[in-house]
Formats: sequence, structure tokens, C-alpha cells
Amino acid sequence: MKFAATAVAAAIMLAAPLSVWEAMAQDPALDEDTIEQAERLMDAGLDSTIGYEIVESLTTEIGARLAGSEAEARARDWAVAKMTALGLANVRIEPFDVPYWERGIEEAAIVSPYPQTLELTALGGSVATPVEGVTGEIVRFETLADLQDAPMTGFEGKIVFVDEYMTRTQDGSGYGVAVAKRSGAAVEAGKRGAVAALIRSVGTDSHRFPHTGQMRYGDVDRKVPIAALSAPDADQLQRALTRGEPVTVRVRLDTVSPGTRPSGNVIGEIPGRTDEIVVIGGHLDSWDLGTGAVDDGAGIGITMGAAKIILESGLTPERTIRIVAFGAEEIGLYGGIYYAEKYAADLDKHIVGAESDFGAGQIYQFQTRFGETKLDRAKEFQRVLAPLGIGPGNNEATGGPDMIGLRGAGVPVVTLKQNGWDYFDLHHTHDDTLDKIDPDNIAQNVAAYAGFVWMAANMDGDFRDPVTLPVTGEASQ
Amino acid sequence: MKFAATAVAAAIMLAAPLSVWEAMAQDPALDEDTIEQAERLMDAGLDSTIGYEIVESLTTEIGARLAGSEAEARARDWAVAKMTALGLANVRIEPFDVPYWERGIEEAAIVSPYPQTLELTALGGSVATPVEGVTGEIVRFETLADLQDAPMTGFEGKIVFVDEYMTRTQDGSGYGVAVAKRSGAAVEAGKRGAVAALIRSVGTDSHRFPHTGQMRYGDVDRKVPIAALSAPDADQLQRALTRGEPVTVRVRLDTVSPGTRPSGNVIGEIPGRTDEIVVIGGHLDSWDLGTGAVDDGAGIGITMGAAKIILESGLTPERTIRIVAFGAEEIGLYGGIYYAEKYAADLDKHIVGAESDFGAGQIYQFQTRFGETKLDRAKEFQRVLAPLGIGPGNNEATGGPDMIGLRGAGVPVVTLKQNGWDYFDLHHTHDDTLDKIDPDNIAQNVAAYAGFVWMAANMDGDFRDPVTLPVTGEASQ
Repeated sequence: MKFAATAVAAAIMLAAPLSVWEAMAQDPALDEDTIEQAERLMDAGLDSTIGYEIVESLTTEIGARLAGSEAEARARDWAVAKMTALGLANVRIEPFDVPYWERGIEEAAIVSPYPQTLELTALGGSVATPVEGVTGEIVRFETLADLQDAPMTGFEGKIVFVDEYMTRTQDGSGYGVAVAKRSGAAVEAGKRGAVAALIRSVGTDSHRFPHTGQMRYGDVDRKVPIAALSAPDADQLQRALTRGEPVTVRVRLDTVSPGTRPSGNVIGEIPGRTDEIVVIGGHLDSWDLGTGAVDDGAGIGITMGAAKIILESGLTPERTIRIVAFGAEEIGLYGGIYYAEKYAADLDKHIVGAESDFGAGQIYQFQTRFGETKLDRAKEFQRVLAPLGIGPGNNEATGGPDMIGLRGAGVPVVTLKQNGWDYFDLHHTHDDTLDKIDPDNIAQNVAAYAGFVWMAANMDGDFRDPVTLPVTGEASQ
Repeated sequence: MKFAATAVAAAIMLAAPLSVWEAMAQDPALDEDTIEQAERLMDAGLDSTIGYEIVESLTTEIGARLAGSEAEARARDWAVAKMTALGLANVRIEPFDVPYWERGIEEAAIVSPYPQTLELTALGGSVATPVEGVTGEIVRFETLADLQDAPMTGFEGKIVFVDEYMTRTQDGSGYGVAVAKRSGAAVEAGKRGAVAALIRSVGTDSHRFPHTGQMRYGDVDRKVPIAALSAPDADQLQRALTRGEPVTVRVRLDTVSPGTRPSGNVIGEIPGRTDEIVVIGGHLDSWDLGTGAVDDGAGIGITMGAAKIILESGLTPERTIRIVAFGAEEIGLYGGIYYAEKYAADLDKHIVGAESDFGAGQIYQFQTRFGETKLDRAKEFQRVLAPLGIGPGNNEATGGPDMIGLRGAGVPVVTLKQNGWDYFDLHHTHDDTLDKIDPDNIAQNVAAYAGFVWMAANMDGDFRDPVTLPVTGEASQ
């Protein structure tokens, strides 16, 4: 039925390249029943505590769950049990291996002229220092670009410190710029003969929490250890340096990389009537410091919670609604990439995908990556979601980190954009704990996902452009 | 001159017990010159950054400075250099010894049924666990009182957890109740055969920072180790327990108490024309976790800063203004007690004392502990301070922790009451760092102390009741 409608549209398009755009725009995706059902699900989501309960369960019963760790394995068992208890079908673990890395003792101190400890944490993937640590004079750069522009000599035996700040924004747009230093600082420091690299944490808080996160050396010849200072410690080092005397710091990082370990995705479904799939999820792994509440217990709670709201309604969707708890996101999007590989042959049946991985703040925007001929469908969906306070967004959604494979393969994605004003206060720190989640906000997220996924699973047609697009240049002639 | 005025007042009092109260109330302490000078000093304080600069210097160049540590010794040298540079006279260290205690490795984890690490910190004075730690089932009490009421048996081999909350208040009045568990939990746990005690941190934040603080065993037969969990970790333990299964925790604390170490007060003065003294100060030591910015670098900055404002005015006070940077406050008010002992013979020459030790929030109230016949003087002083936003307070001031000895000896004290709404978010944590201090607020504090201390140093008479008080019962006959 749905394919038939698409075929008609494609036929119209081939016959009349100009008018097809209008014709498709006037072809509504949602019928009244679907809209009414979505509205009822949204109401039920707002009234439900299920999203919060799921995050509470995960963060309390498992806590931190580093990719590849025994805790992540327990989290997979937890997810199987939880999905089963919620009533999802076809619950399964889809295993894969990941490179394992673990932090050990980490210590730092200003040795002179103002002896005192500093609080830092190794970045994921960092090599270790010798057990006695490395000691060197600090050379500070305001930005990664300044380090990249620095001469290639004169840094032997020194510790490079990239003191770049991150901008606080609602949409997380400050992250991309700030995160570049996470890999770049060690790479550039290593090339220049430095013994280690330090960065100001990629974060927006002013608490004594260093922010970890994955770094990558690429194909450098010389790998030097790298760690992030908490913002107050970066301030402290900056102040020490402005006093004019050389500042010497000792850093010890006992990281280990003992080879590969098992990880995996956990999948559960609400089976539909067709073989088409709507996929939503969050990632199950977290960094090792906090309990992974906002990153990304929230995404797990929101998407499993949305599924539960639908299951409780007794409705059966046209398409299968698939919930994925992705493994090993933090260390390199392993779960998302694996998923796209495993289901490569089925990706044309994936109508749309969305991962919730930006905390538990209120959703304020419906962002899409749809075919250009289907942008009116974004408006249709947004109008239904609007009572939740969700406005229209652009068509540049990423769909979330673990949608990388699907997005790359052309599967339409959606980002239900959350208010991330405070997200990078907590992100990748010890302080990412359950108390930071507002139950009302997470209920709004559950409502939005329940409404969105229900509409996507039951709409007519899809979000893709027809296989052969009209050529705009020709059409306008 | 001042003594003469007091003598006259005393004579009036003896002659006419009823009317003396009114007569004294009508005898103003402050002349117009003194008020005008105080106002100019307050204006200068508001415009100055000196208070902030001093805290910045102390927290950056020394950082944490645990009582009895080598860092506290460096802080004394810093204070001597800073007081000298500011232009204070008679700068000196007055040494004394203190019992030394140091934390070492501290680790905790839920062993079962939800294995994960917990963040805690030993309380000052706690004994160590064995190196392998102690492991026991958690027995939770909502309050210390509940533990005190518990039976004396059935706790052998268990870990007692006192989960009592602290109330957030502007005036810090929630502290006294909450702090009782710091000593009480270990004492009661030890009596009942438990292997360790844990408490919810004495604090008001919900960040992953445990709050340390001194505990005391008193004369118990059995000392058990005690540590404070951060609020999110206390929440976590509470949630784990509510799931119904026994919760087992392992705690390792490698504390050491290697004997006595040197500490000391650092003193500097603005010499007056008489041998009377007005004393203000803060405490120089801090806990080892943060850099002691709000507790109590702020008090050092505020009181040394006030002295600098007066020195810059070129005015000479009638009475000597003495600035004391007290040592070893945190572990038992050693500096304050030592000061009162050392100057026991001179305490009658101490007109008034005040310690700033409640952070760097705005001062909102002028609280006193004056003789009852001198309460009008509190009003006189408060009226001059009022443009800074400082209202009248009661007559139950403590004067600050290190005024304990002076207060006990009957020296009048003043508390320039600071807004402590956020103080216990930071108090005794890693997060007590310079970034938490608002430069405008500390300038208001400097202004208030400069104005207050100038008035106290130049007023007519004092804040004490006459040696022989009129007996109210007789007077009313």
C-alpha cells in the first residue's frame, strides 16, 4: 500500500518534473487516526514515569559501564531483562568485539614553583606514562590552532597545555570546536617532542570535575599521554603561569590497553504488519567516571520508555518499531557502525532512525534529514509534536552518533533536539549521575519519542526522495 | 580618655541604677569624624580588588594547606610576606604544635548486589581500615538519633550508614544539626560492634564531591573508621538498599596520624595610639581537598584587605588594629584557642574581635555579642554599615570559630553575617576553589570590615557592660 503510493508519486514525477514537488507536498503522510493515536500516546508519555524508572534502574543496578568492560556486559543482561519485562519481542544481544582501554591510577601536581596537586583524568585511548610519571615544564597554548602553528622544535621534554575554552550553547554547537583538541593536542605535542599533553576539559562547568572522552593518535610515530584538567585546575595552571616563573608539572597515568573485549547491541521490537522498520535507541555504554545518567542512560530510558507507552496502548503499528541499546558508542560508535553493517541488506526497509544521546533536557525542536521532496512531512510531524513545545528545525539532523552508519547509507534520520544548556557541565564526568535528571523533562522526551515513532511507523509513504530525482536545471527550462 | 568616659558612665550607673541604661544609650560611641572616615574607607573598599587579589595569591601560590602540613608552613611564610608587603607592622609567626593527620588512598565500592565504585572521603581524625579494607553489609539509619536509639547488638561486622540530610539556609543554621553525625556516627557504630561508619556528606550540593571535616572519638573503647559519601553516592546507596536485597560495601581508608607537627598563627598590626586592640582575622589552614578559597582564603583576603584599605588612607587609628591569620582551625580551633591563651593577660585590652569564616557571600547583617548596656552601639555601627546592605542582627554572635577563646573570656565579638546560601555546597570539598568567589561580593566584605574595624578602633568607650551591672530586680523596686 505504502509502496503503491510512492510508485504513483514517482510516476507523476517522471511525467511532470515541475508539478511533482507540489503534488507530493499535498500528499499528507498522516491520517486522522494516526494523529489521534499519536496524541493519545503523547499524553500517556507525559503522565508516565517509565523513562525515569528505566534510567534509575540502569544507573543504580549497573552504574558506570565502560565499553568492553564486565560492567557493560552486565548492562547488556540488564537490557535483555528490561526489554523482556517491558513486553518487547525478539529481544536479543548482537555481539561484537571492541578494543579495550582502562584508566588506572592518575595523579598530577605542580612540582614548582607552587607545589600542589592538580585534578585531571586520562582521555580514553591515551597511552600510559612511566610509573614514576613524566615531569616537564608547561608550555601553554590558548587554542589548538596556536599549537598547530607553533614551531616543530623547542618542546623536547616539555608538557604542552592547550587551554582552549568551550562555548556554552543550547544546541551543543560549542562541542565540535572544543573537542578537536582532544585528539589534536596529543598528536601535535608528540610531533614536537613534548613528553605529554594536557587540555582544559571539554566542558562548560566550573566544578572540579575533569571531563574524559575518546582521543585518537591516528598514524603518528610518537604517542604521548594526554589528560584533561578540570576547569578550576586549568584556571589554576593558567594563573600559576601568568606569575612569570617556569611552571613544572608531574603527570602519572597508568592506563592499559589489554586487547579486544566483547561488546554488543541489545535489540527489542514491537513487531509491525510489514517488514519495514523504524529504529530508535540510545547507547548502553558510558564512561567509567560517572554512572552514565545523562550520557546515555537517559537515551535508553527515553526510547525504551516510549516503546512501553506504545505497548501499553494495545495498538499494533504498521511497521516494526525497533529499539536498540547500542554498545561501545563512547569509544568510537562501534554499536552504530556494527548495526549498519549487520543490517546493510535491510537498510532500504529502514524508514527512519533516531538516537537520543544528548541528555534529558526538554526537546524543543524537530530536526530532520529527509529527502528534499519530503520536507512537508517534517512540518506535518512537527505540528503534531508542537503541543509538547517542539518547534520546527532544519534538515541537517545527524540523528545522533549511532545513526552514523544509517545516515551514511541514506536512511532518513531525525533529531528530537534537546535543550543541552547544562549537558556539557556533566558530560563524561564523575558528576553524571541520576540526580541531574528532571523527571518531568524525561517524561516530555518519552512523550515526543512515542508520538514520533508511532507516526513514522504508521504514515503513508516515507521520508526518502524518489529514486530518480527531477533535475532542477532541466525542470526550470 | 576612653576609660574616663567609661568611668563616668559607671559612676552614673551606680548612683542611679534605672536611668543609667538610658543615659548610656544616649552616649554615642562614634563622633562625626569617625563616621565620615569609616564611610570613606567603605567606599574605598567597594572600589578595591585587594581582597580578591589576596585570596587569589594564597590559593594559587599555596593551594590546599592542611593543618600541620608542610603546605600550611609555606602558607605562614606567604602570610608573613603578604602582611609585610601590605605595610602591616609587627608581623610575626606565633608557633604551636598540633596533632597531625593525613588521608591516603581512599576507595569504596558496592560489592553486591550491584557492583560499582562509590565516591567518599575519610573524615579528619578517622582511623584507617586494614589495607585490604573492611567489607560489611550496610545498615542504614535516617538520622543519627535513630542510630543512637538502636539496640546495642546485631551490628557486628556491619557498616553503619547515617543518611541524614542537611537543610540549606542563608545563615548556616542547618550545619549544627547535620554535623553532629560526623563524630556521632563512628562513636555509635563502634559501640555496637560495626566495622565502619559512613555518613551522607554534611553539605547541601548534589555534586559528586564528598565533604570532609573533623571527627572525634572522645573516650570510646573501639574506634572504627568513618568516611563521608558524596550526596549522589548516598542517594545511590539508598536506592540500592530500597531494592530489598542486602547491600555489601567495601571501604578502604589509608589514613595516618604520625604525631605532632608545627602550626602557628601569623599576626600583623596597624599600630594605634593606645594599648587597646581590635582584632580581626580569618584562618590560614584549609582542608586538603580543595584550595581553601571560600574556607577560608576569603576570610584572609577580606581581613588583610580591610587592613590595606585603612593603611592606604594614611589614617592612624586610636587603638591597634590586629590582623590574625589563625592556624589549624579546621582540626580543632587550635589557633583561636592558642591566641586566647597567649594573650590571656591582655584580653581586657581587646575591645572587640571578629573572624571572617563563612565564605565570600555578601554581608547582610551586623550581629553582635555586646554587653546589654551597649546594644545601642550595635545600632550606631549598623547604621553606618547600612549603605552596604547590612541590617541589624541579634546579640548572639559567635564572632567566628577562632573567637572561641576570646568570647569565652568575655571579649565582645561581632559577626558580619555573610549570605551562606551556597557555602555548604563547597565547604570541605575538592570544589572549594577560587572560581567560586564573586569579586564584587568580596569587595563588599572588605568595605564592611574596613568600616567596622575603623569605627571600633576609634569609638569612645567599648562594648562591655560595666564591671558591676545594675541588678534589674533591685532597680525595679
